[in-house]
This record gives sequence, structure tokens and C-alpha cells, in this order.
Amino acid sequence: MKSEQSNLLFPKGEKLPEQWFTGNAYLQPLLARDKNNDFTIGSVSFEENARTHWHTHPKGQVLIVTEGEGLYQEKGKPAQTIKKADIINIPENTAHWHGATNRSGMTHIAISHYLGDTQVTWLNAVSNEEFNKANQ
Amino acid sequence: MKSEQSNLLFPKGEKLPEQWFTGNAYLQPLLARDKNNDFTIGSVSFEENARTHWHTHPKGQVLIVTEGEGLYQEKGKPAQTIKKADIINIPENTAHWHGATNRSGMTHIAISHYLGDTQVTWLNAVSNEEFNKANQ
Repeated sequence: MKSEQSNLLFPKGEKLPEQWFTGNAYLQPLLARDKNNDFTIGSVSFEENARTHWHTHPKGQVLIVTEGEGLYQEKGKPAQTIKKADIINIPENTAHWHGATNRSGMTHIAISHYLGDTQVTWLNAVSNEEFNKANQ
Repeated sequence: MKSEQSNLLFPKGEKLPEQWFTGNAYLQPLLARDKNNDFTIGSVSFEENARTHWHTHPKGQVLIVTEGEGLYQEKGKPAQTIKKADIINIPENTAHWHGATNRSGMTHIAISHYLGDTQVTWLNAVSNEEFNKANQ
């Protein structure tokens, strides 16, 4: 019988910095920017309770959830549950965060567009109060 | 015990046309073109022996293999085996085909760029001789 780990589509990759992520989040890079692809592609894994800080993308980002169940929230809107096989088309210049829930990990592919040389602008951390409310 | 089917990331989708595909190939659309995303995203599943015709992309295509093992061949080069978790960055204006092997199905996500309103130019079918040689 295979362990859950061995069924993962991609390796977990390297831990993402505490400067911009709360908890244990990991990035496995999949594709670099080049002349045809004005974006990077990576697989991002969030352990239980892990999440991005609030942030914006100047030309948007597409998430493809490949494992587990997590949360996505745009500023001023209720958090949404997102799960394996969901596609999230994040608009440009919209403050939001994504990550795991408080009881399940989540992994997504991220297609992160460039506008000039910028993919993301980081904002404040998602507070425990905000995260707890999103999990209710 | 789960069946293999229930572990698939996405539904198989609708059968792709015999005009451009040999054998049983299926498309599940995942994301439409919009102002930030100058491409479509879909999940394409090839049953054993199924493959695209030869074709070119005017601005390239990215494949992310999510299940099984298949083949990718550029004109004038040997066929390559591609498998779950492989990323294939297909250059622009390069005749190629992709699909299953003669003994295994294969599913990939395809990120298909537009140049103007064109994503693909279709060429001849991959003959049984070409496919058999690729499988050797």
C-alpha cells in the first residue's frame, strides 16, 4: 500500500519564507519565464494552518488545486473553500490570500503572470483572527 | 479500495474529434481565454494508442503530465517518453505530436497560447508506422 506522500503529483520542494508566508508552505518550481511564457509555474504546498500573506498580482494568477482542501479569500468578501480540481482565476490588483484550512493541507499549481518584472506585491500577514474567521 | 478512475484529478471530458486525433482522446476544459490569460487551459486524456496529429503552435504550449506515461516527438527527433509530473515546454512553430504509448494511457494539462486568434495549426496524422517506431 502506497503512503499518501508517494501519491503526490510533484515533490514538496523548498520551504517558503516567513517574510511572506505564515506556517509551513513549500514551493516546487515547475517552469521558468521565457519568451513564450510570460509567467512562472510552480507547485505550492500548504500544511494545515499555513497561508500566504495578503497580496496582489499586477496581472493576475491562476491556481489549479491538485491536492487537499484549502481557503481563498479576496479582501472584503467571505473566504471560499477550494479543493482538488478547482481552478481559481485571481484578478489583477485584488488583495487576497490563499492557503490550507486549520484541519487540512492543500497543494495548488500556480501560474503567476508578470507585468514588467513584477508578479506579486506583498501586504500584511493574515492574522489568526482573520484565519479563524475564514475557517468558520 | 478506490478504482483508478476515482483518483483522476479531473473528469475525462468530451471526446476529441477524429479530424485531429487518432484513437480515443478527451478534453476537459479548465480555463477560457481572458484579458490576463492569453491562453486556454485544459486536461487532455489519451487512452492507449491515442495521439494528436502532427501540429504546430504559433506561440508554443506547456504540458504538465498529471497521470500515466506517454510520448512526445518533435519532427526529425526521436520520440521521448513523458510521464506523470513531467513538464514539456513546446516551442513555437515546431511540428510535433503527443499522446499515449501503445501500452499506457496518459493525461496532461495543456496551457495553449494564442498568437492573434490561432492556437494550433494541424498537419498530417501520425501514421501507425511512425507511432510503432516511437514505441520501440
